[in-house]
Amino acid sequence: MGTVVRGVIRADRAVADAFAQLGVATAHEAQGRRGLLAPYLNPIYPGARISGTAVTVSVPPGDNWMIHVAVEQCRDGDILVVAPTSRCDDGYFGELLATALAARGVRGLVIEAGCRDVRELTRMGFPVWSRCVSAAGTVKETIGDVNLPLVCGGQLIAPGDVIVADDDGVVVVPRLDASAVLEASRARAQKEEAARERYAAGELSLDVNGMRERLAERGLRYVD
Amino acid sequence: MGTVVRGVIRADRAVADAFAQLGVATAHEAQGRRGLLAPYLNPIYPGARISGTAVTVSVPPGDNWMIHVAVEQCRDGDILVVAPTSRCDDGYFGELLATALAARGVRGLVIEAGCRDVRELTRMGFPVWSRCVSAAGTVKETIGDVNLPLVCGGQLIAPGDVIVADDDGVVVVPRLDASAVLEASRARAQKEEAARERYAAGELSLDVNGMRERLAERGLRYVD
Amino acid sequence: MGTVVRGVIRADRAVADAFAQLGVATAHEAQGRRGLLAPYLNPIYPGARISGTAVTVSVPPGDNWMIHVAVEQCRDGDILVVAPTSRCDDGYFGELLATALAARGVRGLVIEAGCRDVRELTRMGFPVWSRCVSAAGTVKETIGDVNLPLVCGGQLIAPGDVIVADDDGVVVVPRLDASAVLEASRARAQKEEAARERYAAGELSLDVNGMRERLAERGLRYVD
Amino acid sequence: MGTVVRGVIRADRAVADAFAQLGVATAHEAQGRRGLLAPYLNPIYPGARISGTAVTVSVPPGDNWMIHVAVEQCRDGDILVVAPTSRCDDGYFGELLATALAARGVRGLVIEAGCRDVRELTRMGFPVWSRCVSAAGTVKETIGDVNLPLVCGGQLIAPGDVIVADDDGVVVVPRLDASAVLEASRARAQKEEAARERYAAGELSLDVNGMRERLAERGLRYVD
Amino acid sequence: MGTVVRGVIRADRAVADAFAQLGVATAHEAQGRRGLLAPYLNPIYPGARISGTAVTVSVPPGDNWMIHVAVEQCRDGDILVVAPTSRCDDGYFGELLATALAARGVRGLVIEAGCRDVRELTRMGFPVWSRCVSAAGTVKETIGDVNLPLVCGGQLIAPGDVIVADDDGVVVVPRLDASAVLEASRARAQKEEAARERYAAGELSLDVNGMRERLAERGLRYVD
Amino acid sequence: MGTVVRGVIRADRAVADAFAQLGVATAHEAQGRRGLLAPYLNPIYPGARISGTAVTVSVPPGDNWMIHVAVEQCRDGDILVVAPTSRCDDGYFGELLATALAARGVRGLVIEAGCRDVRELTRMGFPVWSRCVSAAGTVKETIGDVNLPLVCGGQLIAPGDVIVADDDGVVVVPRLDASAVLEASRARAQKEEAARERYAAGELSLDVNGMRERLAERGLRYVD
Repeated sequence: MGTVVRGVIRADRAVADAFAQLGVATAHEAQGRRGLLAPYLNPIYPGARISGTAVTVSVPPGDNWMIHVAVEQCRDGDILVVAPTSRCDDGYFGELLATALAARGVRGLVIEAGCRDVRELTRMGFPVWSRCVSAAGTVKETIGDVNLPLVCGGQLIAPGDVIVADDDGVVVVPRLDASAVLEASRARAQKEEAARERYAAGELSLDVNGMRERLAERGLRYVD
Repeated sequence: MGTVVRGVIRADRAVADAFAQLGVATAHEAQGRRGLLAPYLNPIYPGARISGTAVTVSVPPGDNWMIHVAVEQCRDGDILVVAPTSRCDDGYFGELLATALAARGVRGLVIEAGCRDVRELTRMGFPVWSRCVSAAGTVKETIGDVNLPLVCGGQLIAPGDVIVADDDGVVVVPRLDASAVLEASRARAQKEEAARERYAAGELSLDVNGMRERLAERGLRYVD
Repeated sequence: MGTVVRGVIRADRAVADAFAQLGVATAHEAQGRRGLLAPYLNPIYPGARISGTAVTVSVPPGDNWMIHVAVEQCRDGDILVVAPTSRCDDGYFGELLATALAARGVRGLVIEAGCRDVRELTRMGFPVWSRCVSAAGTVKETIGDVNLPLVCGGQLIAPGDVIVADDDGVVVVPRLDASAVLEASRARAQKEEAARERYAAGELSLDVNGMRERLAERGLRYVD
Repeated sequence: MGTVVRGVIRADRAVADAFAQLGVATAHEAQGRRGLLAPYLNPIYPGARISGTAVTVSVPPGDNWMIHVAVEQCRDGDILVVAPTSRCDDGYFGELLATALAARGVRGLVIEAGCRDVRELTRMGFPVWSRCVSAAGTVKETIGDVNLPLVCGGQLIAPGDVIVADDDGVVVVPRLDASAVLEASRARAQKEEAARERYAAGELSLDVNGMRERLAERGLRYVD
Repeated sequence: MGTVVRGVIRADRAVADAFAQLGVATAHEAQGRRGLLAPYLNPIYPGARISGTAVTVSVPPGDNWMIHVAVEQCRDGDILVVAPTSRCDDGYFGELLATALAARGVRGLVIEAGCRDVRELTRMGFPVWSRCVSAAGTVKETIGDVNLPLVCGGQLIAPGDVIVADDDGVVVVPRLDASAVLEASRARAQKEEAARERYAAGELSLDVNGMRERLAERGLRYVD
Repeated sequence: MGTVVRGVIRADRAVADAFAQLGVATAHEAQGRRGLLAPYLNPIYPGARISGTAVTVSVPPGDNWMIHVAVEQCRDGDILVVAPTSRCDDGYFGELLATALAARGVRGLVIEAGCRDVRELTRMGFPVWSRCVSAAGTVKETIGDVNLPLVCGGQLIAPGDVIVADDDGVVVVPRLDASAVLEASRARAQKEEAARERYAAGELSLDVNGMRERLAERGLRYVD
């Protein structure tokens, strides 16, 4: 405990930024249904969709000191990712820290704990994905780590990885896979666009995707 | 496992449609406080209020194949009701399936599992009541049933039953009870309208409903 | 069981009212990080921020009779606080009761149980903080207490205490501490305003609050 | 609400009794992986394994009056199945009711709520599967139903159906399927006995069940 | 924060001790169904039944320092009651602290957080009721309070109150009520003994308690 | 998806084995309070304490095929670690698989999902730490990975790492740290032995660990 790693290698900025248009579900599917954080991480307000590079923070329960330390390690295009070393619902983060992060170009926060000042964060347009909303204050007594790999929402996240977050949740794309996953995401989005038009016209996925034969093989039967 | 029932008898369309104006709480009370699905089924966006006839789908955990099968069995005025055979939070449903359902006149989805593409579903105005929001992808390997009775949110739902859903949750009204419950719902709404006016004018329910005597009998005492 | 206390001494009106501008997080911090109700109490719609004096109601599971009794004890500037004697998710409260309370100048409801008629309550602008949303109806068979101290959301609340509620949750300030906590809250808000400006200008809390030395003492080390 | 059905047709006694030797997992698998109650229903002490015919009781939250009514409808070989109309964790059941049931030959209780007197029930050897253990007392004010079909643990249970319960949980076998499922269960148990011997001798299920080819088809690859 | 109250007035020793024979359910019922702690507090091993006087400890999340402080305030016949200021599942307590408490005659621990060393505590026969079992270590950085009133498991507990704990959970009896509740508990136990014999002989509570008429008044009907 | 890594390098057998005597809490503390899996993973029966080397299995929800594949990769002294790719409570594992694993010398199972055949596993003495007990059957349709690093209970686990499990839960010790952590664990156990004797003799940790001065510095005050 007690290490801050500086000068982390981040995923390519243009690549990381491009995911915001594609969204969480597409990025998750395009990398082989991997990387999705647990669904108990919810946005504090609807409608935000961001992507960026992870700065990771490991914090003790009820102690937000290391978030203050982490601010200094953030730069434009980053997303802060915070996980406590054991379950904690306290409100580690509020508008003052958001103001400091926004001043550095940070795009949002993912935290496996509580968040507060929801009204002000909404007004600022600083999006947060958190386990809960809680005003519970935290102390500044015990140190932790910044920019070491950690587990958040059940996924391993390394500093510099790409984070994508929207109303559907949060997904991590490992830094080295980011370009390939972006390409696969775009391909998927394009394919879905084609399917969408056919479905809107009343076609059935049973036919569009040729599922009827395999369903029959599995024993599906129709009765009246 | 593996049966699709076609040509289900649905509750009367006009009756099913009329519940949307009355809402979940009224329909639940009017049928003797029955039929309410568990409160962990929440709308993905606020403000929707729908009613319609149930098309039911039983799915394995992590496998949404049967929802594709079910689309073909849906028609105008239906509401799709999906329950997994064991607890699963995966994102079985997104905007492509919603596009296919909307093209057939389906009014919404109730699913005891996860839903994704919340942003797009909100934009489309396709309402979903789900256990959670999750982008987790599903497979298409194992078959299930369409239009057999199932349990969703702790309530038995038969195909063709009336489903009512709004910000308060979801209620099922059995097909054969639908007319009577509609009538009772209207009576209740009317009675509430009268009470509302008296309460707004400052009258107390203690007096409007003559509760004081029975409270005293039970032993309620006032102290200063 | 079965006592209604009339003529409760409330916190000073002007003091109680003034908390609404400061909000939950500030009041919680200003009284030494005390008094916060558990984070499972959530607002039924975003954006409300209220403060007022508590009228407390202890109810049996599935029985809302005592809320009707409590209405009569409410006056302008109060907030109703309801807790069941054992966990219950039923919909104890809806728009009719809200109409009656609004007619008396009550500002909102905090309930460790379910609430219904969310659509109508939102339209009325009557805010509720509840454990869940549920249309489940309740009976009127068993009596409870009004204006005795109770535990709600894990906090002891006495009638006449100040309640503050917003998007961050709910906090109780004991009646006798209210003036002092209000003053401390204002001081804190002022101090935060100063910090906000410095953070917005790019200063770091590490420097603004002089944390670097103490972090080093604790053993924090920086690596590249 | 408020109906007691007498003279329910029960599954054949010998058939119902025979399931106790086979257990929950086998009966669940043998009927096509159906009928399993949710895993939050746990035994209050380890080691019990029972089977019998269901007497069903629908109770209001916090009110155990109908369990007293149901005792009279029970006979030798029955298992009492209790579900509240909305979630409730109160202690509906204790040793006095167990004494009354045991005197009638009832084999145990399945309750989607709380149970108390665990120490005494353990000593008596009266097994209970419940949502939780709670000493919370209940009232006797509101009526419910006995021997109407109900949903418990997410499964539809009709009076007279076979209930099997052990350390793995609880499963329901519909009355009319009981003989066939018993036969299938016995066949499954026999087949498992053969497999058990081969596995104990060090054989692999990959070989015993010929899985290797299909795994390869799915794309499984081995690396060193 | 940061107060230790010495010389707390405890409930009478003989009275406090006598509750252990009666148990949690009886004490809860005998004081009018009050005082029961939430059912998520479970014993770490079955079969213990204790009573004693409360020494209360309020601790920060993830910090067990104040438990060390509290040991000194404990004496023979006490039960330690610990609650964190916000939800925490860490393992605040293990066999070393239990050894220290046992040396002073403390009878057990109630903690709304985690406990560890279950194997050793079981061997020692030092019973604990906790929210969960967790080995997660805690720090010693932030102070709290000893022997101030606190909320644990949703109940207000004052130092010196009587605590009763067994397999059914935990109940608090206020110090000043202890004698009266003990007497009422004994009366209840005696009355139950009489009922038990009649139920064991096959009598029905419907008859023993004369419920049939009131059930009929409520509208209960029997059908065949 | 779909990779099986053979010939994994395991932690030294003697080192891995030695942890069983020290237990989870000690190993967790000795490695700087790291590596503890979430407390929702509980033993299916009390009293087991094992250590060994991890064989990891990533499985789809509701599909246990890869556990069958994993058996072949196990050898004497291993512990199987299974995590689903999204939350699933199904009963992936029972006595047949346990028989196969026991035949290879595997010491137990850690699974972030359900387990069944608890009665038989208890009788065999094959310990399992699981999220829940459930008899829910699983399919064999979709492949996953064996012996790739995975996240289980919120911790990253690599194949060959040391797993320690007992009544307190489960902890992972990275393979390369195992010797050092073992040594630190032994030192800690020895130190605790000394403290235990002093506490048993009535000494206070306040004095044994010299805490009084630092508590006073923090502002702790004693009142009567």
